[in-house]
Amino acid sequence: MDINKDFLKEIGKKIIEIREKKGEKQSDLSFHTGLEVSEISKYEQGKINMTFKTFLKFAHVLDVHPKELLDFEFDIKRHKIK
Amino acid sequence: MDINKDFLKEIGKKIIEIREKKGEKQSDLSFHTGLEVSEISKYEQGKINMTFKTFLKFAHVLDVHPKELLDFEFDIKRHKIK
Repeated sequence: MDINKDFLKEIGKKIIEIREKKGEKQSDLSFHTGLEVSEISKYEQGKINMTFKTFLKFAHVLDVHPKELLDFEFDIKRHKIK
Repeated sequence: MDINKDFLKEIGKKIIEIREKKGEKQSDLSFHTGLEVSEISKYEQGKINMTFKTFLKFAHVLDVHPKELLDFEFDIKRHKIK
């Protein structure tokens, strides 16, 4: 499995986890980031590539340190890098 | 200051910190990532934009969980997002 896809899926799950913990809906994130709800949904499913700029937007809107969006199990050595 | 630039600078410093702790040189990272030494130097100075793919390459070569590359002080709310 492509390391990038795996990683983006985990970030998406973490965004959902934090968003729901804060009682926010996708539409709230859409309002604060300027991203469409459909885009947010794709990011949350790890379906589209994410730039650091977008990554920081999520951290900013969710009011968390960016490293919290990477706080998941991820065995880097299990993946080949291309 | 642009949130992106600040953030990339901090990641660069963290790459240097971990690389030196592991006794590796930029040329070692260049060999393992396929990136030119000059590119590695620019990433370490936060001078060029970094994709998640490159970010994961650094984590992989330095053998750290990606979140360790974001383990620095960063007050997300002090920055405006554009």
